[in-house]
Amino acid sequence: MEDDELVIERSPLPARIDDRLRAQLTFIAEADRLKTILRASPLAAADRRENDAEHSWHLALMVILLSEYADEPIDVGHATRLVVIHDLVEIYAGDSPVFDPAAVVGQQEREEAAADRLFALLPDDQAAWVRALWDEFEAGQTPEGRFCKAMDRLEPMLLNWLNRGGTWQMPGATESTVRAREAGVVAASTALGEATNSLVEQGLANGWIRPDP
Amino acid sequence: MEDDELVIERSPLPARIDDRLRAQLTFIAEADRLKTILRASPLAAADRRENDAEHSWHLALMVILLSEYADEPIDVGHATRLVVIHDLVEIYAGDSPVFDPAAVVGQQEREEAAADRLFALLPDDQAAWVRALWDEFEAGQTPEGRFCKAMDRLEPMLLNWLNRGGTWQMPGATESTVRAREAGVVAASTALGEATNSLVEQGLANGWIRPDP
Repeated sequence: MEDDELVIERSPLPARIDDRLRAQLTFIAEADRLKTILRASPLAAADRRENDAEHSWHLALMVILLSEYADEPIDVGHATRLVVIHDLVEIYAGDSPVFDPAAVVGQQEREEAAADRLFALLPDDQAAWVRALWDEFEAGQTPEGRFCKAMDRLEPMLLNWLNRGGTWQMPGATESTVRAREAGVVAASTALGEATNSLVEQGLANGWIRPDP
Repeated sequence: MEDDELVIERSPLPARIDDRLRAQLTFIAEADRLKTILRASPLAAADRRENDAEHSWHLALMVILLSEYADEPIDVGHATRLVVIHDLVEIYAGDSPVFDPAAVVGQQEREEAAADRLFALLPDDQAAWVRALWDEFEAGQTPEGRFCKAMDRLEPMLLNWLNRGGTWQMPGATESTVRAREAGVVAASTALGEATNSLVEQGLANGWIRPDP
């Protein structure tokens, strides 16, 4: 389908559905595109790359199961909302693999433009608080924002571990760039930071992560 | 990989990670398999079937955006947890397409056996409350359980609408079996039930849903 065509345009909703719900269902239909945005990370359970919708679900599961390790108390329901919406802007902005220096150039501007376009599909009141959730995740300055960013770092680390390399094998990934990702876990959770450190230390020892040149 | 091999067995976790976190990460790694369980429903944004992880994410987004339409007040954070875990048992039990009468034979027994096996990977305390979340979703007797089941009915209805047929074209799908799915939306939300009714009425008029024989 064309990039500028809304998913809903294929089969417009029946006229009886009122404007507010129509806007919400239009957004929910457009969100189906998140299932087509591929990340660099390989799955552990199949020989293919992960998509953003699967990734967002996996983070939600991790928030629910690992919240006990947050260094500051977190509201699990709120944190779950943050991870469910955190990658939606990639529907228009695309994924920017962290170990690809070219991909991250202009990422913030692309994602903000995508947020303006995507969230405008929602009724105004809802667009405002969904945007606020996204801004909170991006800033990572609240306990929930920090913890969700930590999950966003830890999940691909675990997939890389299970793949004995994964994106750790990309040209831009060496010890220091991998350690920078580890720091995002440490910032929210001492215990999960230590576990991540174990994966990185052992990954280096196993040759799954390259030392710095 | 073999069905009886845990995902984590490929690359066992470093010895420094303690037993509790090891159990949780083992479960989180095994959960990656949910991304490989295909549903009957087609995506709207790509020409392939939806998997359970994507579907669970989409339900979580719908819970967050549509909770205002619940006939009874719901705790959105709790409801989001229910949908995130609701399909995990299909990792071992497989998907049972609702319009396939053969697939639903023995479904409950298969899923309970899968729950016993899967949730046992977690530490005991967590296994108990994750199992309770799954039981609550399955029973659909709390306001959150009812609303989440309504989302689980509405999401494939919307995908079918966007595909101008989708699983409505399966042999077992005719007006009465589609209406039975609509009833699951009506049970939790008058407003969303009316919208679903519009989709079904128009779907019948358009020939996307067959009348009963």
